[in-house]
Order: sequence, then structure tokens, then C-alpha cells
Amino acid sequence: MPKLIAIIAGAGPGTGSAVALRFAQVYPVVVLSRSQSSLDPLVRDIKQNGGHALSIPTDVTSSSSMNSTMDRIKAEFGSDMSVAAAVYNVASKFMKKPFLEQSQDEFLGSLEPSIKGAFNFAQATLPFMLNQHQGQYPPTFIFTGATAAIKGGSGLSAFAMSKFGIRAMSQSLAREFGPKGVHVSHAIIDGIIDTEKTKAFSQDVPDSKIDPKWIAESYWFLHTQPRTSFTHEIDLRPYSETW
Amino acid sequence: MPKLIAIIAGAGPGTGSAVALRFAQVYPVVVLSRSQSSLDPLVRDIKQNGGHALSIPTDVTSSSSMNSTMDRIKAEFGSDMSVAAAVYNVASKFMKKPFLEQSQDEFLGSLEPSIKGAFNFAQATLPFMLNQHQGQYPPTFIFTGATAAIKGGSGLSAFAMSKFGIRAMSQSLAREFGPKGVHVSHAIIDGIIDTEKTKAFSQDVPDSKIDPKWIAESYWFLHTQPRTSFTHEIDLRPYSETW
Amino acid sequence: MPKLIAIIAGAGPGTGSAVALRFAQVYPVVVLSRSQSSLDPLVRDIKQNGGHALSIPTDVTSSSSMNSTMDRIKAEFGSDMSVAAAVYNVASKFMKKPFLEQSQDEFLGSLEPSIKGAFNFAQATLPFMLNQHQGQYPPTFIFTGATAAIKGGSGLSAFAMSKFGIRAMSQSLAREFGPKGVHVSHAIIDGIIDTEKTKAFSQDVPDSKIDPKWIAESYWFLHTQPRTSFTHEIDLRPYSETW
Amino acid sequence: MPKLIAIIAGAGPGTGSAVALRFAQVYPVVVLSRSQSSLDPLVRDIKQNGGHALSIPTDVTSSSSMNSTMDRIKAEFGSDMSVAAAVYNVASKFMKKPFLEQSQDEFLGSLEPSIKGAFNFAQATLPFMLNQHQGQYPPTFIFTGATAAIKGGSGLSAFAMSKFGIRAMSQSLAREFGPKGVHVSHAIIDGIIDTEKTKAFSQDVPDSKIDPKWIAESYWFLHTQPRTSFTHEIDLRPYSETW
Repeated sequence: MPKLIAIIAGAGPGTGSAVALRFAQVYPVVVLSRSQSSLDPLVRDIKQNGGHALSIPTDVTSSSSMNSTMDRIKAEFGSDMSVAAAVYNVASKFMKKPFLEQSQDEFLGSLEPSIKGAFNFAQATLPFMLNQHQGQYPPTFIFTGATAAIKGGSGLSAFAMSKFGIRAMSQSLAREFGPKGVHVSHAIIDGIIDTEKTKAFSQDVPDSKIDPKWIAESYWFLHTQPRTSFTHEIDLRPYSETW
Repeated sequence: MPKLIAIIAGAGPGTGSAVALRFAQVYPVVVLSRSQSSLDPLVRDIKQNGGHALSIPTDVTSSSSMNSTMDRIKAEFGSDMSVAAAVYNVASKFMKKPFLEQSQDEFLGSLEPSIKGAFNFAQATLPFMLNQHQGQYPPTFIFTGATAAIKGGSGLSAFAMSKFGIRAMSQSLAREFGPKGVHVSHAIIDGIIDTEKTKAFSQDVPDSKIDPKWIAESYWFLHTQPRTSFTHEIDLRPYSETW
Repeated sequence: MPKLIAIIAGAGPGTGSAVALRFAQVYPVVVLSRSQSSLDPLVRDIKQNGGHALSIPTDVTSSSSMNSTMDRIKAEFGSDMSVAAAVYNVASKFMKKPFLEQSQDEFLGSLEPSIKGAFNFAQATLPFMLNQHQGQYPPTFIFTGATAAIKGGSGLSAFAMSKFGIRAMSQSLAREFGPKGVHVSHAIIDGIIDTEKTKAFSQDVPDSKIDPKWIAESYWFLHTQPRTSFTHEIDLRPYSETW
Repeated sequence: MPKLIAIIAGAGPGTGSAVALRFAQVYPVVVLSRSQSSLDPLVRDIKQNGGHALSIPTDVTSSSSMNSTMDRIKAEFGSDMSVAAAVYNVASKFMKKPFLEQSQDEFLGSLEPSIKGAFNFAQATLPFMLNQHQGQYPPTFIFTGATAAIKGGSGLSAFAMSKFGIRAMSQSLAREFGPKGVHVSHAIIDGIIDTEKTKAFSQDVPDSKIDPKWIAESYWFLHTQPRTSFTHEIDLRPYSETW
């Protein structure tokens, strides 16, 4: 019987790992990140929880890298496999600096994940969502977004462009692939995510950082919605966040 | 031990009933509607599923009616009860007709549920959400909204005003009560809801109406989110909907 | 020849007066406000500038008051007169206080201008915009809005509901009357308006308050747009405003 | 005395030319487009109307091309010149086709004007807006946008990304340069623009295409707003447009 898998791009520590762990409770998951080393602890975690994980170091902004990743996935799960869920969680490089001090290289560079990366990943995975022959839930494509997806900011042109851009793509794909039964969603993560890196932030206010496990639960919930009742956009923020 | 209850205003057939049934799996539910007769089958359903329901015919647009309903609730569950979830699902009367043919009475009348009703219900229930002493999940207040909450339409001034208004209130309450731990959400229901009344609509396209059970599941999911990770706004629409 | 006039509701000091003065450069203007005394200085100003003004104390939230105002206007300009421009600038009473401390009366009272008032004024004036037989510019209906039209705030339920509501009505009327050649616009005034009352605010930053004359110029500009090129929504804010 | 000029990027037939003609009533204008041949008739028009125009074939997506254009401008007007107005009207290539049939090259290619081009043009011109020593009006930077700036569409990922992206940049620059006195605006052009190319469209409904002259008048009006009263975003659409 053809295999159903989940693929997480941007599966580093934090949101990506939490999402992978959640979907691994039900599907074999393929986890992508630039470096193998950032994937290793995740694969260990998934296995310890009884799940199945395949980690493939991938530069999603390179179509050849993304293609060879897909080849590897097909080799592992069969070329008749289906993608039950694809999550695009690759971070745009955050850059906040005066516009006139930005070089074209850093400006364009910081946009690559949201443009080339999202394009490559969506083109590689969507065909395997349309061939869905089985599956309890509609195939689901989720983009991780941010507040900067709906509001630009001083010094944030590149970051806002990348986040607005991801939202534009997610709306466009939802309108194209929704009628074909694919659930495309966009999540606006509005606040600091609680990770190793952000440990020192906002310690004075309890529960003031977003729990990546609950980003994962929310993504999982989106995945379970039937095609009668798709949510396209959700926001997630701590109770204490000003917005 | 103080009781934790859920209250659903607008618990008629369709969304309100489905939400009541879902929350009744965990809490005793109080169901409000103008007429007792529309509540009876719901109460029967809830009891058959092993839940506990109290139905109180209420005109939420009347503060005295809402007050006596609260008295009745306190008599039943104790005045130290807490409201785990309050759902405001009272329909604005849908009116689509040329603006210049609308009488002031029908215009204002169609706004009453979204203004007086929402105000009375929120004022009556929020104090019992702030006193939360127990409860696995943060107290949750959910407003049912519609597409007309974000887009006006020809002949729809009153309807759009009521839906924009509900959204204004839900954002304002979220910003005021969120920091106090109350989860306030707004759901944009974008499409035809699958009920007895809409049976004849869109029969040619399978699954093209929103399943009220999944509105209920989505509301329940919102309720389970911890205060680190509140969703304020979700949309729900069938895969086949043009938007 | 039938007369073309402009009508300004909410023609008190500040925006309303500035708008009346601007439109009085071209049309006889009718200025409405609750009290005659607040209209007197405006009428004097208009006359000194060579314009023609008719002031009528009016409670726009009362349909009978609005009706007798229209009778008075028809008596003055002929019942075949046309309204070239109608501006709804009646302030919602600003109220910022904890939601649970608001009485139903003050909540509902603060909504009256945006609901009853806007309804009455639009119903009274639109028929005289549709009968346009002359006029260099398309008949124009402008609603003054505020930031609270797109964002609710803590303690601001009533204010946000009234401003969201005005926006809902302006979108709905634009979609209904636009195709009939009426230009309906909504202005989001985002910042402190420079008036006598606000003299003491923001004195440290030069030019940090919105100049009512430029609200008026912007409204006038909207009025001059031909039907090929209608602007529905504009925002206005000082360069120094955070948004 | 230092010179004040206006620069229009994307000065081909239609909007760009109309804007150039309008601003040429007051400033010497520099008009940029890929090909000299599309600039020639415009320069002729401007001169016939008594204006002064410098046309420079420029590929704004190339920083070296943009740089040599700036050198040419400084040679002509002095390196102490100021930019009174900069208009970015370079079209994203419109592409509507199934997402899975798009090549990475055409996808990325269609984004270039909105990303590289907008970045290069903004970086080149903004320094000459900050040095403003004279000028009756605040220096003004206007981006031409489209409906796709706020709504994605099936088959329109690239187009929507580019338009969302332009909006992200315009908001970010407004928030950064507004407090420095630069007026940054974004115009949502919602409808068919009336040009030679679109002559055959919508002929049955009179005035149903946007008049580029009125886009130009609207841009000019934005330019005249003082810093007390900046409009950041306007929409422009024919009365007959469904939206």
C-alpha cells in the first residue's frame, strides 16, 4: 500500500522540531534543514517516541538540492507515496537595520528562503498531495508566517517583504489547490517563541512566550479539519502580548 | 467544589447546537435561545450523549432577561460557579435589500443582537470567567462572525455593521481580557453552514457546506489552547468556496 | 436651474468646520450640529470668505429632526436641489473605560451617532445625490473614520464598534451606490487633530497634529475624482505618528 | 540654487507617462524605462507642454544600470540636487498560470522588478529626498500597487508576491522615513487602466477603465499633502468595478 508521509522544511530546534514530533505521532516524517547536525537530535527524539524519521540535509533555496531530496524520499517511501502534510517553516533571516545601510546582497539574500525556497518546496511537494489515494485527513500545506506578514516596520523591508510574500503565496495556493482538496494554511506567529535561544527573554512575565508544542498542536488541528471546514489563517500569540 | 460550566447563546439548530453538544462532552452546558421549543431537542441530544444541559429561554438583547438568566444559572450551579467557555452565536437578522428601502426600525432591529445582545452577554459572563479558580483550560469567549465582518456589501449595511461590530468588540475584549488570562476569539464563518434549512443549497458540489460539527470542533480546539498560544481569529470555509 | 449644495453633518469646530469652509468655496453649504451656537462662528467665517451657508441645529440621531432639516433645506434651495457632497463627520462619543464598568446606557448611547445618525443622514441625503442633473463632479458621500475603524482596543469596545460600523456602512454604500455614480469614501483619521481643544497636546514635536484644513483638502480632492477613478479609502496621519 | 526634480521609474505608456506629464508641470522630470523608444514620445509630450524632461534608458533591476543613471542625473542637475518626488511604477510581469507549470526562472524573473528594482530605485533616490533643502512640498515616494497587493489568487503566486512585497516595502519605508519628513505612499490600482493596450476591453460600460491622468492627479495630490497630514495608502477604481 502506498505510503503517506509528512515533510517539514526548516526542522531546526523550536517550531520545526515540535511540528515534526507532533506529526510523527501519526506519519513517518521527513525532516529537512541545512545541516545534518541540527537534525540529529530531532531524529533521536522522534525515534524515542516511537516514530519514524528520515533526515535529509537540504538547501531548499536550491532546486537541485530540493530535487535530490525528493529522489531520496521516493527511494525510501516509493514513488507512489503521498504527502499528507507539508510544512514550510524555513526562517527568513531576520534583519533590522536602516534601509540605506543594507547592501543589495544582504537584502536579496534574506529573501531567498521565502521566495526561492517556498517556490521549490511547494513545487516539489504539491504533486504528491494531489495524488492522494488514501489518508484520513485532506492533504495539508502549512506556511509559518509572522506579524511582519501583515505589517511592515522601520528597518524591516526585507523581512516584511519575505513574510508578506509567504502570505501572498499561501493565499494564492489556497485559492488554486483548495478546490482540488488540498488544505493550504498560513499561521501568523505573533510573539517570541519559547526556545533555547530565547530563554533569557521575557522571564518576568509567566507564560509570555509561545509554546512551540502548541504551534505544533495548532498545525495538527488544521490538518485534521475536513474539506467542508478549512481554516486558511490563524494567529498565535501569548495572552500577554500587545497587538 | 465550585462548578465550571459552558454557556452558549444562540443555541438553535446548526452551529449553536453543535457547539453545545461538543462542550457538553466536558462541561455542563447552559443553552440560551429565544424560544424553549428550539432548545428542547438539543437538551434531549445532550442528555442522550451523557451530558448535562440547562436550557433557559432568553432574549439576550434585554438586560433584564439576561439578568434573570444569570440568576437562574447561579441558582443551579452556585454563585461561585465559573464560566469555562462562553460562546456568542446569536444571529444578526440577515437583511439584503436596497438601502433606501430599509426602514429605520428594520435597520436598527437587525443590529440589536450584535450590539445590545453581545454587550449584555459579555457583561453577564465575563465576571465569571475572571474568577476562574480551577479549570484545565483558560476561560474562553468565542464570537461567531461571518465574511461580512471584513467586507461590506450592496444592500448589506445593517448586516455588515453588525458583523464588523462583533469583530470590533471581540478585538477590544481580547486586548482587555487577554492579559487577564481570558481567551477571546472571533471566528469568520465564510460559506453556507450545512443545516436542515440549507439542505437544498449547493447539492451538486459534494462537501460544499460547512459542517457545524467542525465549527464546534474548531471552537473546542480554541478552548484547549493554553495562554502561551492563543488564537484570536480563525476563518472556516469549504474547500470549494470562492473567496 | 436646480441648486447644487453640500451638506456637512457634525460641523462643529475642527474637521467639520474646515470641511464646510472648503466646500463653501464652490457650493452653498448646509451645516448641521446639535447646537446653533457651535454653528454661528462657522457661518460667519463662510460668509466672510464669500460663501453661502445655512446652519440648522439638528440631532441626526433623530429621524424627525433630520426630516425637518431636509424640509428646511428644500424650502431654501428648492425640492429639485441636488446634493453634490454629503459629509458625515458626527463624532462617536469617545469612551475608554473598563468594559465591566460601562453601563448599557452609556455603551448604547455612544453608538447612536454612528448607527442611527449615519443611517438617518445617509437615507435623507442619498436620494438627492441620485437625482444629479448637473454638477461638475460626481456626487460624493464621505464618512470620517478613525484608527479604531480597523483595530479594536482595550476599554474601547463601544468606540471601535461605532468606527468599524461606519466603515461597514461606507463599504456597503460604496458597493451599492458606486455603480449608480455616487462616490462613497471613508477616511481613516489616524492621529490627533489640531484644534483648540488639543492645543496642549504634542507641543514638543512640530507639525505632529493633523491639520483639519488638510482633512478638508483631502475630502475636496476625493470629490473632484471622476467616476473612472474613485478612491474609497484614505488614511491621514502626521509624519511623526507611530502606526 | 540646488535643483528639485522628479523621477519616474516605469515611465512607459499609461500610468508612468501620465504621472511624468503631471509632475513635469512643476519639476524637471527624469523618466526611466528599459527602452529609449518608449520614452521618446513622452519626452516630446512633456516638452510640448512646456516642461523639461530627461530620459534615461535604465534597467532598474540592475544596480549598475541604476547607478550610472544616478550619475547621469547628477551630471545634469548637480550632485546637490534634491528629489522632490520619486515614483516607482515598474510593472511586475503579469503571469497567470497553474503553479505547477511555472518554471523557477519565470517565477523568479517576474519578481525581479518588485524586489531588486524597487530596492535599487529606493536606495538610489532616498538619499536625495533626505537632503531636501528647499521645496514647497515634502519629498514624496509613491509605489504603484494593485489589488493583488492585498489578495492572492489562483495561478497568481508570483504576481501576488511581487505586489504584497511592494506593499511591505512601502509600509516599511513609510515607518522609517516618515518621521524624517519623507512621504511614502502606496496606491492600490484596482481595475483596468485605460491605455492603448486596453482599448478593446470593457467598451460596453462607459468610463469603466481607470483614467491614467487621474492616477497622476491622485499622485500629485499626495505630493502636495503637508507632513501634518500624510496619506499612506489610497485605492483607485472605476465606479463600475466589483470589489
